Amino acid sequence: MVKKSLIALGAMLLMFPTLAFAEDPAPATTIGLDSVWVMLGAILVILMQGGFILLETGSTRMKNAGHVAGKTIFTFGLCSLIFWAVGYGIAFGSGGNPILGLADFFFNPSFTIEGMYGSSVFFLFQLAFAGVSLSIAWGGFAERAKLSVYLIFAILFSSIVYPVIAHWIWNADGWLAKDGAQDFAGSTVVHLTGAAAALAATILLKPRIGKFNRDGSANEILGHNQVYTALSVLLLWVGWFGFNAGSTVSVGDGFFGFVAFNTQLGAAGGAVAALLISWVVMGKADISTMLNGALAGLVAITASCAYVDPWAAIVIGLVAGLLVFGSTKFFEKIKVDDPIYALSVHGAAGIWGTLANGFFATPDLVEKVGIGKAGLLYGGGFEQLGVQALSIVACGAFAFAVSFVLLGVIKALNGLRVTEEEEIIGLDLSEHGAYGYPEQMKKEGTITA
Amino acid sequence: MVKKSLIALGAMLLMFPTLAFAEDPAPATTIGLDSVWVMLGAILVILMQGGFILLETGSTRMKNAGHVAGKTIFTFGLCSLIFWAVGYGIAFGSGGNPILGLADFFFNPSFTIEGMYGSSVFFLFQLAFAGVSLSIAWGGFAERAKLSVYLIFAILFSSIVYPVIAHWIWNADGWLAKDGAQDFAGSTVVHLTGAAAALAATILLKPRIGKFNRDGSANEILGHNQVYTALSVLLLWVGWFGFNAGSTVSVGDGFFGFVAFNTQLGAAGGAVAALLISWVVMGKADISTMLNGALAGLVAITASCAYVDPWAAIVIGLVAGLLVFGSTKFFEKIKVDDPIYALSVHGAAGIWGTLANGFFATPDLVEKVGIGKAGLLYGGGFEQLGVQALSIVACGAFAFAVSFVLLGVIKALNGLRVTEEEEIIGLDLSEHGAYGYPEQMKKEGTITA
Amino acid sequence: MVKKSLIALGAMLLMFPTLAFAEDPAPATTIGLDSVWVMLGAILVILMQGGFILLETGSTRMKNAGHVAGKTIFTFGLCSLIFWAVGYGIAFGSGGNPILGLADFFFNPSFTIEGMYGSSVFFLFQLAFAGVSLSIAWGGFAERAKLSVYLIFAILFSSIVYPVIAHWIWNADGWLAKDGAQDFAGSTVVHLTGAAAALAATILLKPRIGKFNRDGSANEILGHNQVYTALSVLLLWVGWFGFNAGSTVSVGDGFFGFVAFNTQLGAAGGAVAALLISWVVMGKADISTMLNGALAGLVAITASCAYVDPWAAIVIGLVAGLLVFGSTKFFEKIKVDDPIYALSVHGAAGIWGTLANGFFATPDLVEKVGIGKAGLLYGGGFEQLGVQALSIVACGAFAFAVSFVLLGVIKALNGLRVTEEEEIIGLDLSEHGAYGYPEQMKKEGTITA
Repeated sequence: MVKKSLIALGAMLLMFPTLAFAEDPAPATTIGLDSVWVMLGAILVILMQGGFILLETGSTRMKNAGHVAGKTIFTFGLCSLIFWAVGYGIAFGSGGNPILGLADFFFNPSFTIEGMYGSSVFFLFQLAFAGVSLSIAWGGFAERAKLSVYLIFAILFSSIVYPVIAHWIWNADGWLAKDGAQDFAGSTVVHLTGAAAALAATILLKPRIGKFNRDGSANEILGHNQVYTALSVLLLWVGWFGFNAGSTVSVGDGFFGFVAFNTQLGAAGGAVAALLISWVVMGKADISTMLNGALAGLVAITASCAYVDPWAAIVIGLVAGLLVFGSTKFFEKIKVDDPIYALSVHGAAGIWGTLANGFFATPDLVEKVGIGKAGLLYGGGFEQLGVQALSIVACGAFAFAVSFVLLGVIKALNGLRVTEEEEIIGLDLSEHGAYGYPEQMKKEGTITA
Repeated sequence: MVKKSLIALGAMLLMFPTLAFAEDPAPATTIGLDSVWVMLGAILVILMQGGFILLETGSTRMKNAGHVAGKTIFTFGLCSLIFWAVGYGIAFGSGGNPILGLADFFFNPSFTIEGMYGSSVFFLFQLAFAGVSLSIAWGGFAERAKLSVYLIFAILFSSIVYPVIAHWIWNADGWLAKDGAQDFAGSTVVHLTGAAAALAATILLKPRIGKFNRDGSANEILGHNQVYTALSVLLLWVGWFGFNAGSTVSVGDGFFGFVAFNTQLGAAGGAVAALLISWVVMGKADISTMLNGALAGLVAITASCAYVDPWAAIVIGLVAGLLVFGSTKFFEKIKVDDPIYALSVHGAAGIWGTLANGFFATPDLVEKVGIGKAGLLYGGGFEQLGVQALSIVACGAFAFAVSFVLLGVIKALNGLRVTEEEEIIGLDLSEHGAYGYPEQMKKEGTITA
Repeated sequence: MVKKSLIALGAMLLMFPTLAFAEDPAPATTIGLDSVWVMLGAILVILMQGGFILLETGSTRMKNAGHVAGKTIFTFGLCSLIFWAVGYGIAFGSGGNPILGLADFFFNPSFTIEGMYGSSVFFLFQLAFAGVSLSIAWGGFAERAKLSVYLIFAILFSSIVYPVIAHWIWNADGWLAKDGAQDFAGSTVVHLTGAAAALAATILLKPRIGKFNRDGSANEILGHNQVYTALSVLLLWVGWFGFNAGSTVSVGDGFFGFVAFNTQLGAAGGAVAALLISWVVMGKADISTMLNGALAGLVAITASCAYVDPWAAIVIGLVAGLLVFGSTKFFEKIKVDDPIYALSVHGAAGIWGTLANGFFATPDLVEKVGIGKAGLLYGGGFEQLGVQALSIVACGAFAFAVSFVLLGVIKALNGLRVTEEEEIIGLDLSEHGAYGYPEQMKKEGTITA
């Protein structure tokens, strides 16, 4: 049905040359094991929402902490209901066309395993990905969007923006899937999509008060808690084993281990490169940059983790770490306010990771996964690179354009941004009536409820 | 032996119509897989203690933070030793009678799998549940009970209160099990029991200083950190997949996936409903209410996750979200101080979730699980609803009454509450000799050690 | 190849008397299940880095929080690259000699399972252990070492110190492995090694400013956040199920469950004993001591979890809890500054746990695991106790001496410690240019960037 299950099927049929059960390629226990593996993947990806709670609150100010943290729970809940009602059907509904699926709305899974693993488990795994993409998008809304905008956009993103792109690349019927686009676990589908929505939001919302001076220079608005951000990176790192290795959606011959192995190397490369470049260029080893580097390494290896050799995984991570440093400077220079670094970490690194397949995908691994062609460095020419570029442009443009139009309509009808006074007071008080840190804020003699 | 293993057995025998291994219904690997699944469940439920650390500290004040956080580790350790020595035998000891088990004290499991899965793994899974119930009970003690009371009551709750109720409903010998009480993962056994103990404690301890005014009106004593509480909800949500889906105690035909699916929908419904009702009624979207809504959805779906269709899971979650909002107001009105909202989140929603089976349990799922009858909406009449109501009344009354008597004795012999001066200074200093946040408290010019 | 895989092999061959597949001791699904189990173990042990982030930041001061938290991500990334390039080959490279392995550098695993489970998964599991040992070592560097020292020592520790000791005990070729040293999951290999490096560091770095007075008396430099430290203990506790039970590296006949069971009892014993001893001796139930007790119980049961009966697991934990209290006092008395308590929690308890095998290892369990002899209490005489003592002395001395020499060279060439002014300002500003808590620090009127 979907590309991921095609991968699983391929694993079953192709990967057991010496180990196969002769008569039955998938006995009950094997299917049960695959279901447990995908369930573990779903749990780990849902745990990443905890990473986003800490990443977003740590990167923003105390006066908004309760709002920023709390809205993650609320929007993940809303995303779950909408993806259940609409989004899953558009993304993975059977009998779909190349553009979008049109079945399985108000999804009612069988109680038990049908086919390769339980459809209920597959749903949860896919829902968790949609939730991550949505949490990435919130990076562009931070510290100034109205709560009502979170509510409305969560519905639209979970029903339209994300599902259509997931359909294009991850449903076997999707037009980019048919073109052989390689995006193993979502550098484009999840990360670039979220970042494109964040870009639309941050353009329409305009920068936070105080971010840019009249002369165009930028001020650094420091996040309030680097323990939160460091812990967030670790939680996301842990969750990424579900994200990437879980995307094998089968245990099969143990290929998931290799995917996890590459994931670790990519993350490591990103963290090290970003720390060193910031140390060399700025004279100080910047903690935020280094944390972003680890995340950028993870984002970049997401598309390529199943397609490249370990040395290439390290190179992809290292480049992502350098890239995120330059990208952050670039967005600041063009006066785009990116509080959580979503545009750099998920956008720039997502693009790089998707392109990287076009360079580094090896013939052996392409054969194993069964999607697309080998990359430029392995004699594959520019063909796969072209497919990868096409998928970036198509998905990035769609996600940005649709988000921009939807948010533009919301802006016209409802407004996007809180008032200047509310923003200065902070969203905890203005949107929720109480500080997230009441004792610490009160001590400051700040306005209290 | 126990009802949960009956479920597993049922799964094995009934659920493999097309997939079964002909001769051997449970080959080594299948049993190993089930053991891994239950182990993963135990790990996830133990992770929920991290959720409780953050939920309780986030919902209380800075001067008590070290105490509130640290006591969770200590009491979970003590609960482990007592449940090992006594509690497990009372709950699950073989050859028991309808009221309590009387075997397997000082539990000495076999090194390896016997029967369906390792008894050591089953023990850990059940211990994790006892630990959760105990952490729920602490909600009624918060910010004013003596440390010695935590020590004594942890022993009593882990050896008597919780195990007896677990025996009644989850041991096949238990009298409510024989009546067909449906409580798949513990809306009553774990959540209502903990909440009933919390109610006994909060009545005997009386409200915190400053909670209620002389005229009977209530003051809001805000928790100090909503990032903690939001992260706690996410950790609990993640852990709940072990709690509910792990309670299949078997991978079998993948039914656990359906249980996890319903769990996600229940949580989502609770979060969304609570946010909306608080927004509509109070004019502000209250973060605490919304977080409690997500938890209430999870608590409510706990009894019913294996018995109801997805639409009903959403309804159960939505109602739980509304209920927790009203329940919180109610307890404040009757001047019961419930700092962590245990009475509403675990009590009211636990009751609703248990009753919900009596309305929404479908014939197909009742047949699958093999316990009780279908609900009122599926032609089951009032029979199952009556059984559910009986189990709520019996368990709630037992847990409350025994806790009340035990705490009453402790009050007479040892005292329950710290002095007024100690409470004002905070339990970090008064019970432990140092602030949990020494730098931040010192800055305030507060009394320091 | 390695001892742990020998254990797995033993499990396969010996542990299926009644359940075995006659012809094929390891069909595809069994091997897949083992791979998933080891992968879950790796994920849980990597999650422990989150525990270390919280443990170290919670135990230190606000002015160093961003540095302490952030360096964990950076050094774990660096450790990953170095262990991949060098360390893994020295520890587990095939065809090695008794002292060190000399193969599998720049590790290039097969895509799929070969032998018992995927080599990529085994690599990740072992890397996670190396990362934990490194994070333990950082305890001796806290709040005063230069960032460059973290970079250099991470490379040296991950390539030389840890891998050599892992080879000695966990590679079947290692000289201590051949002697029958019992260290199931690393009380010595991981914990004592890390603590020995921490001791070398803290001696060379000298105590933090203000820790000891001129008259030799000690001041308590309180950590800034006990919610972090309590949560850290819970995360480490959860991760330890991967650490210990995962070290079976096979599901086999479910022995992993028994290992997990003992782990829980050891942790519980440590927490309870440490709280009680501090309460009795100091008149206050010290939170830090109790948290250290839980960790000490976990460290101590790590070597013995597969070799001892449940009652002995509790005794080992209880003694560890008492020991950590005394050890902390001892190090303070001899004027060794141990900010994160690494010397007591991982050193003293690691030694005790390794020795405990020599007392409590039962003949049945020794036969099951297949390493060494039974302990003194089971008629084994002093033989195993001697082997355990030898492994402690040899590994402790090697790790301390090599770390001391390497750090001595770094001290001569680069310097180890920041200047007095930088230490007073805090490492967040001096090494990274920004506070980890910018809003909270600014409020204090402290120097800001």
